[in-house]
Amino acid sequence: MILEREIINLLARRLYQRDWKPNDVAQLPLNDGRSLICSIDTLVSSTDIPPGLSLRYAARKAAVSVISDFASKGVGVDGMLLSLSLPPTHAKRDIEEIGRGLSEASREYGFKVLAGDTNEASDLVITCCGLGFTERSIPNRGSARVGDTVVTTGLFGLHALGLEILLEGIQPKSNLERLAVQKFTSPMARVDEGGLAVSSGAVTASIDSSDGLLYSLYEIAEHSDVKISIDSLPAYPGIKEAALRYGFSWERLVLGGGEEYELIFTVIRDRWEELENMFSSRGLELLKIGRVEEGSGVYLIEEGMHRRLERTGWEHFGEDRNTVKS
Amino acid sequence: MILEREIINLLARRLYQRDWKPNDVAQLPLNDGRSLICSIDTLVSSTDIPPGLSLRYAARKAAVSVISDFASKGVGVDGMLLSLSLPPTHAKRDIEEIGRGLSEASREYGFKVLAGDTNEASDLVITCCGLGFTERSIPNRGSARVGDTVVTTGLFGLHALGLEILLEGIQPKSNLERLAVQKFTSPMARVDEGGLAVSSGAVTASIDSSDGLLYSLYEIAEHSDVKISIDSLPAYPGIKEAALRYGFSWERLVLGGGEEYELIFTVIRDRWEELENMFSSRGLELLKIGRVEEGSGVYLIEEGMHRRLERTGWEHFGEDRNTVKS
Repeated sequence: MILEREIINLLARRLYQRDWKPNDVAQLPLNDGRSLICSIDTLVSSTDIPPGLSLRYAARKAAVSVISDFASKGVGVDGMLLSLSLPPTHAKRDIEEIGRGLSEASREYGFKVLAGDTNEASDLVITCCGLGFTERSIPNRGSARVGDTVVTTGLFGLHALGLEILLEGIQPKSNLERLAVQKFTSPMARVDEGGLAVSSGAVTASIDSSDGLLYSLYEIAEHSDVKISIDSLPAYPGIKEAALRYGFSWERLVLGGGEEYELIFTVIRDRWEELENMFSSRGLELLKIGRVEEGSGVYLIEEGMHRRLERTGWEHFGEDRNTVKS
Repeated sequence: MILEREIINLLARRLYQRDWKPNDVAQLPLNDGRSLICSIDTLVSSTDIPPGLSLRYAARKAAVSVISDFASKGVGVDGMLLSLSLPPTHAKRDIEEIGRGLSEASREYGFKVLAGDTNEASDLVITCCGLGFTERSIPNRGSARVGDTVVTTGLFGLHALGLEILLEGIQPKSNLERLAVQKFTSPMARVDEGGLAVSSGAVTASIDSSDGLLYSLYEIAEHSDVKISIDSLPAYPGIKEAALRYGFSWERLVLGGGEEYELIFTVIRDRWEELENMFSSRGLELLKIGRVEEGSGVYLIEEGMHRRLERTGWEHFGEDRNTVKS
């Protein structure tokens, strides 16, 4: 079993230019002062679609995942290319559900479907490739600087709770549990937040949390060659109690969830207050969760002690997390 | 069981703009007088990779397939985005083979790998999304006009023979059979031919033959609302005899093969000779195979009689052709 990171490294050595740095989206300079931004993401039914998630929601999610990558760079998706692989047992209704979900995402986020491709496969596989344009140079995950403030666009744990509820076949009992399922099923990409943060010029590094909060923080820490210290876990209110009720680890729900599609930014320290005001005056949320320091790794400060958080989170091909399949 | 065409129609009704017309590549106007050209294509191991085709060749083929779509529009691929889904049983060597094949294609055709994504799935699924630029408006499959000449960049049947040899586990006996396997395994995209033909301005409609000669001719005929008459089947020399030896239908090898990656153009009648001279002066092949007439369907003229050729060819989800799986 090979970890996704190792696969990417193996391929990167063969495929990319010597100066290539991993980024969530690629940037290609055009002749008119703008850059073309592009990103590709794939949803596989057996690993990414829990029982109870209809194909309509799954398809919408496949698109939201790409839109969220773009949002973390402050760029909107203008055009989308789709590749759809379906098991031979698929029915006309399945295809209409997929079309419906993609069409909803297209109206919601204002992108056009440019081209598509259909195939037969054992799993349902939906690949979305997004295209957009920007006049700015975009932050990547490797440009955080010592002294920066670490911020997020929301609290964590709710989506992961929703996934666990679907996986375990639990009947949601409280408003929180119903909200968790709804958030997991119909996540939103933080497009306005990304646009505002990146256009302010105060953001040094950025990533979305689609692979989980801790994984994403590690991506910034490792690629920026810094240490990230978190003041307290940004847990959604009530997550601890809900986790306790079903015997889930609340830390894992908060740190290792994934698919929240919150954005994580490192922000120039002197600009944090200004950015916070910009967000609150527009009714948008921005939370300070920690800071960038010299060193490596991701730490949680508990009663003055620095506890190193081990890298976990959603990683395809890894066995350190329950997958939908297992 | 739904045909690929029906799936595309179902999705198209939901997803595309009202004025959308199917094309092999999409065109997005930029501000600098150019257009962005993009196309997506997926290779699935269970349906697209016959026994004996190593992952190195399969991966190269996934890229060639996109490059061939671009070539039919006279455009080169500058950047490629990849999505790779792998079964959990994959080994490090498999990934290196895939990287090797994609890297070979990248050097051969001069594109950069811009971004990638890896996932776990039951099948090996490789999706390539190509990006390129052009200053021209590109021909599509729906712009053939009555009176045009139908031309191809090569003869047909060799790749299909190669596939049958691999599928049946036949040990190639003749030079032709070895060539057939080699052509199937390492196909070439007709980049020079596409560039020359489209830049001449003599091409009205174009498509590549990756879904088979007949399927591709039908695509032009249906979307252009015309009839195509073929003078004689453009069979590779020796295909008839080789087919006879193993009990294959030689007509099916020629008409319903697929993955030849030859280009099919309709050309303004008065410009055919000029175009033929341009090709031959550069050592490139261009063959006149028929003409565009009023009506519908694709016909073969045999001893003065018009025989209608029924639409077959490679179509995912269809049962009218042997797939690799069956």
